[in-house]
Parts: sequence; structure tokens; C-alpha cells
Amino acid sequence: MPAATNPAVQTAHDHLARNAAVYRKELFDFLRIPSISAQPDHKKDVRAAAEWTRDRCIRAGLKAEVVDSAGHPAVIAEGPQKPGRPTALFYGHHDVQPSGDLSLWHTGPFDPIERDGMVIARGAADDKGQTLCAIAAVEAWMKTAGSLPLNLKMLIEGEEEIGSPNLAPLVEKYRDRLACDFVLIHDTSQFAEEAPALTVGTRGLVYMEVVLTGPEKDLHSGVYGGQIANPANVLADLIATLHTPDGRVNIPKFYDRVAPLSPVERASLASLPYDRATFLKDTGSPAEDGEAGFSTFERRWYRPTLDVNGIYGGYMAAGSSTIIPSRAGAKISMRLVPDQRADEIEKLFVETIKQRCPSTVKMEMISHAHCDPYMADPNSPVMNAAIEALAIGFGKSPVLIRSGGTLPILPMFKRILGADSIMLGYCLPTCNAHSPNEFFHTRDFDAGMRTTAAFFGLLDRIG
Amino acid sequence: MPAATNPAVQTAHDHLARNAAVYRKELFDFLRIPSISAQPDHKKDVRAAAEWTRDRCIRAGLKAEVVDSAGHPAVIAEGPQKPGRPTALFYGHHDVQPSGDLSLWHTGPFDPIERDGMVIARGAADDKGQTLCAIAAVEAWMKTAGSLPLNLKMLIEGEEEIGSPNLAPLVEKYRDRLACDFVLIHDTSQFAEEAPALTVGTRGLVYMEVVLTGPEKDLHSGVYGGQIANPANVLADLIATLHTPDGRVNIPKFYDRVAPLSPVERASLASLPYDRATFLKDTGSPAEDGEAGFSTFERRWYRPTLDVNGIYGGYMAAGSSTIIPSRAGAKISMRLVPDQRADEIEKLFVETIKQRCPSTVKMEMISHAHCDPYMADPNSPVMNAAIEALAIGFGKSPVLIRSGGTLPILPMFKRILGADSIMLGYCLPTCNAHSPNEFFHTRDFDAGMRTTAAFFGLLDRIG
Repeated sequence: MPAATNPAVQTAHDHLARNAAVYRKELFDFLRIPSISAQPDHKKDVRAAAEWTRDRCIRAGLKAEVVDSAGHPAVIAEGPQKPGRPTALFYGHHDVQPSGDLSLWHTGPFDPIERDGMVIARGAADDKGQTLCAIAAVEAWMKTAGSLPLNLKMLIEGEEEIGSPNLAPLVEKYRDRLACDFVLIHDTSQFAEEAPALTVGTRGLVYMEVVLTGPEKDLHSGVYGGQIANPANVLADLIATLHTPDGRVNIPKFYDRVAPLSPVERASLASLPYDRATFLKDTGSPAEDGEAGFSTFERRWYRPTLDVNGIYGGYMAAGSSTIIPSRAGAKISMRLVPDQRADEIEKLFVETIKQRCPSTVKMEMISHAHCDPYMADPNSPVMNAAIEALAIGFGKSPVLIRSGGTLPILPMFKRILGADSIMLGYCLPTCNAHSPNEFFHTRDFDAGMRTTAAFFGLLDRIG
Repeated sequence: MPAATNPAVQTAHDHLARNAAVYRKELFDFLRIPSISAQPDHKKDVRAAAEWTRDRCIRAGLKAEVVDSAGHPAVIAEGPQKPGRPTALFYGHHDVQPSGDLSLWHTGPFDPIERDGMVIARGAADDKGQTLCAIAAVEAWMKTAGSLPLNLKMLIEGEEEIGSPNLAPLVEKYRDRLACDFVLIHDTSQFAEEAPALTVGTRGLVYMEVVLTGPEKDLHSGVYGGQIANPANVLADLIATLHTPDGRVNIPKFYDRVAPLSPVERASLASLPYDRATFLKDTGSPAEDGEAGFSTFERRWYRPTLDVNGIYGGYMAAGSSTIIPSRAGAKISMRLVPDQRADEIEKLFVETIKQRCPSTVKMEMISHAHCDPYMADPNSPVMNAAIEALAIGFGKSPVLIRSGGTLPILPMFKRILGADSIMLGYCLPTCNAHSPNEFFHTRDFDAGMRTTAAFFGLLDRIG
């Protein structure tokens, strides 16, 4: 384990160690609030979670207030001014996913317990536990050094689990107050058990629906079969053109902006263990498949994809019906990687479909989602501080990974605040974040608090 | 109008002309019975229609009885024995389609009226009106000549509109009693107004469902997109392989048994008027499409086809969901033409899909339907008699057409009784057979009775 070179970090860590039981208890208090943002009857609970967060930030030594949005309230907090030091905006959320099927929970989702080294409750990891890591780290610095080694702002929202519909307007509104050099997020995960990770990028998304209409109504396939275009057949033909036999997306210029892997990420990738049997068991799929020449992790993180998410048309119930469908449609999404641009890819997709769709059917397209990929500089001083902080907090050098998914808040922060995001995730990828029996290992909770406290101290060197 | 060469035919026609009002009234009586076979609360009405039919056959001079099946009853009737003469089995049905949306009917579906030269009611054409043409023709011969110029048997079932589930067992059971040289059916239509037609063949059907399973459950398309096979994409790829760019079915050996068009059918085809604008208006399709090098009628009647009748998989509701579907499936049917064989085509389809489906997904196939195409000899003496009879009855030479649809009873009669079917249809193809405001032109009802009576007389020459 690398030593904390800044003695103030060690002092803050000592505070955290002495107060481990207190923070555990406070996590339990936070978890007892059923702040389910998706369910209107929990509106008051979401506000209660905001108020609990505000009060906890104030006790940690910050100025904090609940700020209203068009939906659930957020909390904005600020530490003491430190002129000349870097400014971080911590982002987290105090709302949680619904419980889901209660019969699958071994304990009540809002009755947290500690068992087998885990805190088990809805929100234990996502994101109450990880948010509390940051607040505890702040408190450790404030109680021991009397101040923070950085300018810290916190934005802890209450609508993450419903897609953050009011976050961008809120960030716009408080743009000056939230101005920062970078955003710090504890809402991702480690790579695996005992494998802390920094998530340095996420994939973008373009989600389209293609709807084809042939005859005006379903027709008898005996009377009209073979005489007019069948929109379901045409749709299949169109979809089939969207990949080459080697699994590449067959849209002209699609790969033009795909950035090569940086040496630091390539090295990290080489160090990752991959177990084919586990992957197949996790997916329940008969085989791996995808773009030829790339490994599963490369396909997940570094390569763009195109998938049919849904397809429909004609007679879909049990049994048979002899019709030529009037309509058939497909929901088709593309995951994008740096430096692809969502607007450009959507345009290429639309042009390609228009060009390939025969005039024997009518064609419409609907755009459902649209988000740029996100990539932080894996070689920046702040990123290096985060790497070092994870090594200190977890006692293991982290790996650099990406997420195959899409986080619209990252390009949003970049667009409005001009700031990159550092994603330090402390829970496990298997922590049941949106499933029954969500958990957070207590050792990871403790390591997370230490990591954030160390990260603050390492920024001191940068400022 | 060709003269009826047999003077007995003219005498029978005179009877029909004298009694036109009587048969019109009797058709009304028949139509007032709501014999909807699909609806259990009309069970008694279907039996009542069978009894009405039996009584009407007896009054016409036949022996007749209601025979029970596992479902609705049928009627079997027989004329006097005529040794050495050809034996015909007339097939018709006394059940009708449901009314459908009553608000779309201009008059009550079971309150027949005559308006603008049409009898309007459910069953007016399909098949009560056309069945009554045969019974009236029988009566005209019996009342004028005192006997029939052929051995006539009638089988008038009560389950045609629900797919004749008990007809084959009934024909098996009464195989000896129903033995015949050919089957006579009045359940098709003219080609168009003023264009009487003989339907000499129907297409067969093989209806399969292909179901592909990739991952065991729907997966997050960000986390797993591009790393496993997506069954919806694989399905589209598979379907796309099933046609060549020129619209031919791309299954090896698929066309091997397709019989060339006979000269007599080719001549008839050349005589048919085709109006592109009407076809596009009827289908509501932007364009004609299909196998290159063939006209719309050729594509409908003489060429086999392959169509997706339904396709499904993944997220099919409104909006978007970012999943890799676990399953995707397609209902795919092929219409077959002589001399293709349903069992062979199903085998070729299954082999082709098995061979082309990658091992990255699991594949299952379900067989939904299976029926051989049917083709009568368009040059047989009986067919020539039917052609001549239509020319006498309608005053116009008929065209030889086929049906693009599938009639399982035709191969069934061929299989059990060894008999070909003669399809003499008197109503219009636009008669709203399964729609509101079904009608039968009174002039066609009269022409139909004359045609059947003439046909009986022309068989006298053959016997």
C-alpha cells in the first residue's frame, strides 16, 4: 500500500478509522429514508433525503441548502474558499430505485442490516453509500485540518433514478455557483472484487425507430402475397444491410471518428482478467459474438455497436394468421465511442436507411435518444491523483476501464460547465444496484471514504 | 349466347325463369337463419340451417338427411341412381361468417332485402345463395325431366367458416356414400363483373415460425451490446437470405417442381384485363412488387411466394428501451403452386434455416400449417362442360383463373375420394363475403341457377 505522502491525509484517515462505527450508523439512517423518486407517494421521502443530506453536509462543515427543481429537490453545498486551489464539483444523488419484488428481498429494503461484511438495503451502494463516502471525507478533513485542500462544491440531486429530467436546467441556473475545474462522481463501480477501477469514458447513444408501411391495411397473404412489398421482409432486408459479415456496422463513415485506444488504457486492458465461462454464464448466451478482431472488453468499451432493441410487425400472437402486414418497425440503437458525434451518426444512419429503403414501402423514422460518448483525459494530473488515491484507499493499483453504457450527465457537465468528470466507483459491479438485496461491502465503504479523503489531499499538490 | 344444345336444359331453364320469384323468396328464408358457426350461441341456428337445407333438398326431389359431426351438423343428399352416368359430389356450406361490426351494415345482416339488383344479407353469396343455385338447378331438372342427367350427391357442411375441422373425418366416414367422379363447388367467385370464371387451381401453404434465443434474458444493450449475438439482428439476417434481389425465393430446389403454365391457362391469362391503378387502390400499397419477370396475376396464381406474416422481439411498446432481446421470432409462410409438395417444401425450408442460422443463437421451428397446392386438369371433359355451362348461363365465355389462397378441402377430396374439384363461382370477388353488407346480384343468382342446370345437362353428353 503506497503511503499517503501528505501527512494531513494520514490524519484524516485516522479520523475516519476512529469514527468508522459512526459513519456506518449514519449510513443506516440515510438508508432508512425510502427516497424512491419514481413513485409519487414517496415525494416527501425524497425531500426528507435531501434535507438529511443538507444537514449532514452542514455538520461536515459545509454551507448547504436544499434547492428546488421542477421535480424532486437537490442539495447544493460548498466548502471554504481556497483561492488558487483546484475546484471540484462532487456529483451524487440521494434518491433510490424502487424496491422491486419484495418477495425477493431477504430483509426489508429500507431496514438496513449489516451481514457477512455487507450493508444490505436499497441505496446502500447506489448512491447513498458512495455519496456518504464523500461527505465523510470532507468531515475528516474539516475536523482534522480545519479546512479542505481544495475548493469543493457538491451537487446531490434527487432524480437520478428517473433519468435526471431537471438536472441540466438546474446546472444552467446555478452555472456560476457550480463552476469548477472538474466533476467528481462516485456512482460507478470497481472492475471486480479486489479490483478498484477508474471509469474514464462511457459510450454515447443514438436510438432510432424505423417504421415501414406497405399496404394500407393487413392483406390476405394468399390473395396478395408476392404482388406487393411486404414491409416485414423489407425491414429484415434493411436491418441485414447494417452489418458486414465480420460484424462491423455497415454505415458509410460510421467509424471515421473512432479514436484509437490510448497507451495507458491499452496497458490497463491487457491487465484485466477475462473469464469466458463466467461471461457466458452471466449472459446466458450460447457464444461470444461481435466485431471480428476485438476482445469482449474491447467490444464493450472501445468499439461502437448497432443493435435491434425491438422489432414488430403483422401477426405477433400465438398460432398463425395469413396476412401481409401493413406495418413493421424496428427500434435500432447505436452505442458510440469517442470521438464519434451523436448528431453526425444519427444523420449517417438516416441517410443510409433512406438510401437503402425501396420505394415500394413508405418509411418513417423516429429519434428516441441522442447522447454523445464521453471520455476524460486518462493522463491528466487530476486523473493521476485519482489513480494514486485509489491505490492508497484500496491498497491496490486501479485499472482504467470504461462503461459500455451511456451517462448523459457527463457530456451535460462538459457542455454547461466545461468540466471533465472523474468517476471513482467503490461498490462492486455485482452489488444489485437495481435489483433486490442491494449491498455495499463495509470494507469498500471504508476504503471509499479513505480514497476520497486521499484524493482531496493529492489535489493539494496539483493546485 | 350459345344455345343449350340439350333441349332438356332449355326446359329446365324455362322452369327456373318461371319460378325466379319463388327461389328469390326461398333464398330470403335461408338467409334469415343466423347460422354463425363461430359463435356458440348460434349452435341451434346452424342446426336449423342444416334442417332447412335438408328439407329444401327433399322438396327438390332428393333423398336427404342431417348428419352429425363432432361439431355442427352437415347435410348429405342423393339423387336417383343413374347407372353409367358420371357421378358428381356437390359441396357447399350452410353456415355463415359472423356479422362483424353491425354499425357498418346498412341493413340487418339477417334481414335480407333486395335493393339495386342485389340481395343483401350475411351469407347471400357465401355460401347460401350459391348453394341454393345448385338445389334449384336440381329441382328444375326433377320437375321438368323427372330425373337428373347424372348421379348427384350433395354434401353441405356447417363448419366451413371455422376451417372445416370435422369435414375430413366426415368424408372418411361416408367415403363409399360420397364416392364420385368429381366434386362440384360453388364457393368461389367470378373474375370480375361480367367476367364469369372457372377457378382451376389454388396455392398450397407451408406456414412456419422461427424462434431465436440469444441471451437467457433481455440484457442491457450498453453493458452487453456488441459482445453477444442479438437474436433480432440474426433473425433479420436470416429472413434477408430468403429472397434474391430479383424477388425469387432463395431456398435451394424451391422451384424445382413448379409446373409450367398450360397453353389454355396462358391464353386465358392473356385475355384478362389488369388495371394497375385499381390494384394499387385496392391494396393501398405504394407500388407493385414481386418476382421479376412476372405480371401481378402470374405472381398471384402461378408463382410460389414467401412472406413474413409476423415478426416480434425485444421491446415493442411505445418509446425506447435499451435492451438486447433474449428472443425474436418470425412467422413465415410460403404459398405453393403445382407441382410443389408441402412436405418437401417444409423440409427444404427447415434445412435452409438450420444451415444458415449461426450457432451464436439457439433456434427452434414450429410448423403451423401445411397444405398442398391444388390443380384440376383444365382440359378435362368435365372442365369443358363447366366452361360451356358458364357461357350458357352467363352469356359470356368464362376465363380460367386460379386462387392465390389455399383451400385444404380440395387436396382432402382428392386424397380421400380420389376426385378433382370443379370450382364454379357465381358471385363477385367484391361481394363483401366476410365484410359488412354482403351481397349477391340477383342477375348472378339467376345466371348461377341456369349455369348449374346447364352443366348437369352437358354432363349427359359425357357420361
